[in-house]
Amino acid sequence: MEPVNLKRLAQELKLSVATVSRALNNSKSASQETKARVLAMAQKLNYEPNPHASSLRRHNSKTIGVILPEVTNPFFSLVINGIEEVARDNNYHVLIYLTHDNYQRELAITRLLVGGRIDGVLISVASTSQNFNHLDLLRQRNIPTVFFDRVYDGLDTAQVTTDNYESSYAATCHLIDNGCRTIAHLAVSNSLSIGRTRTQGYVAALHDNSIAFDDELMLHAQTTKHQDVTMIQGLLQRRPDIDGIFASVESLAMSSYEACQNLGLSIITDIKIIAFSNLEIASFLSPPLTTITQPAYTMGREAARILFEALLENTPILASHSLELKSKLIVRSSTLAVS
Amino acid sequence: MEPVNLKRLAQELKLSVATVSRALNNSKSASQETKARVLAMAQKLNYEPNPHASSLRRHNSKTIGVILPEVTNPFFSLVINGIEEVARDNNYHVLIYLTHDNYQRELAITRLLVGGRIDGVLISVASTSQNFNHLDLLRQRNIPTVFFDRVYDGLDTAQVTTDNYESSYAATCHLIDNGCRTIAHLAVSNSLSIGRTRTQGYVAALHDNSIAFDDELMLHAQTTKHQDVTMIQGLLQRRPDIDGIFASVESLAMSSYEACQNLGLSIITDIKIIAFSNLEIASFLSPPLTTITQPAYTMGREAARILFEALLENTPILASHSLELKSKLIVRSSTLAVS
Repeated sequence: MEPVNLKRLAQELKLSVATVSRALNNSKSASQETKARVLAMAQKLNYEPNPHASSLRRHNSKTIGVILPEVTNPFFSLVINGIEEVARDNNYHVLIYLTHDNYQRELAITRLLVGGRIDGVLISVASTSQNFNHLDLLRQRNIPTVFFDRVYDGLDTAQVTTDNYESSYAATCHLIDNGCRTIAHLAVSNSLSIGRTRTQGYVAALHDNSIAFDDELMLHAQTTKHQDVTMIQGLLQRRPDIDGIFASVESLAMSSYEACQNLGLSIITDIKIIAFSNLEIASFLSPPLTTITQPAYTMGREAARILFEALLENTPILASHSLELKSKLIVRSSTLAVS
Repeated sequence: MEPVNLKRLAQELKLSVATVSRALNNSKSASQETKARVLAMAQKLNYEPNPHASSLRRHNSKTIGVILPEVTNPFFSLVINGIEEVARDNNYHVLIYLTHDNYQRELAITRLLVGGRIDGVLISVASTSQNFNHLDLLRQRNIPTVFFDRVYDGLDTAQVTTDNYESSYAATCHLIDNGCRTIAHLAVSNSLSIGRTRTQGYVAALHDNSIAFDDELMLHAQTTKHQDVTMIQGLLQRRPDIDGIFASVESLAMSSYEACQNLGLSIITDIKIIAFSNLEIASFLSPPLTTITQPAYTMGREAARILFEALLENTPILASHSLELKSKLIVRSSTLAVS
């Protein structure tokens, strides 16, 4: 016979696992009545908490780890600020680990973390095309984990994301509405699921506007800025009919500005540009950049909130705690319709 | 009688402490002859290594800590990239801790670090006006420490800085040469020594150009961007004679752009702006921003190099290992002379 675990207990009581866990841990947020019911059932079924999990869950390090690709992108630095605010409120320390979008580094960092230094992990993955055994390690070691922005679906835990499909669809429609017909899509690495989702939004918007998808108009981010600029210049020279650029990451928009400057092309008149970006100074660019702005700070806060609720209540993080936040299309001059 | 320590041994041998330490640790960079001399003297004087220090110096964590104010400033994110490259070459992990320029947080972080998790520390301090007992802790626990950019002189260790005085002097002269006479100086917190040094460069340049220093033209960064913009607008309204702004941190330059836009003032014609900044896209701003650009990536690399030489050779870090790197004045349109 299966040992009685939290899940079985919850089923018998017709309560959620989180509620049962809170009651067993004598949490303030569980009512006295619930606690009494849960304890009675636990006794009846001979429920015994897993001592190993219990020991790991003592949360003594008062430290959480944040694994993310980089900090030169303002999106990620804003996320960090959101995470840190919540951590500070809970008297926790935040350790930041950068993967630079490199799978091997993410692997090494995860192995370091499961060594036992931290109480929980917030992670934005480097790539979703590799295997994820290292992330399963987090589960095996009972380290509560929340994904944000760049997620991996194989782990049964919460994710905080934004509406990538809808906002890419809206961005592409915005270019079409303002007169663009031949729209290049500059995508992040195609090993990331958010890259694929954003591309799907772009393709669907083209389709719904009776514009054929043209594979030649799709480019992916390279390793260096110089490579990006060269790649974009090459495309604009091969395809002088391009009249719009949808950059799915801010750095590619800036490389597009540089490519246009180098080729003597006028942004607005010759080519309109829109990009996913959290650049605070987008309105001081020449021309001001139309952006899809993700709620980066809120994303950090919410991901941290989910993690701390689990840590403080000693409850599991469930996929049902996931959130999808809305991004915002902020229209500035770089996509201005020219009559 | 005093116990014989490394310093005494070095004095007797007329060698540096670093050389003696290298010889005792059988480092490849010490010659066989030196090793023999040092060992003979160590035996003669009954030198015994401090077992506690020795144990702390085993460098088993393969991890260094970086303590810095924030990552939303591209200067710091570039420094991190430089540090990480060197750490990666040495198979070390980098933990990043943000103080948000808050002394209490720096204190808490330092106490956490001396708990023994890391082999060495790179730090850019939150403030230089408070007491530094927490940084002395790093020395007491034999944790090798290198300061970068925002330094504290009270600890006898290496610092990697830039020529703040000279570059502030040059920035102010550049504004004067291009026609400015009433130059506002937007400074970082005056609790930072780099803030004070930059102000000294500004004051000296005014003096050498026979322009009287005017206290009313000095402002210090506030807590939020909104406060900064309001403060700058207030100054520009009180003093319509202001024709130049020297911002000693990038965020204040961007707030100045916003203040000018709000007041309908033309940057270049009405007011010229120059700023310390590592913003990659300064040339795509409207107008392109003239900057003093610090070698941020190199600063990170050099600070890490000094730390790793000490860790790998098991030698102390000395003040004489300090470096001053040169910043670069990059002239763009925001300071254009108007005839």
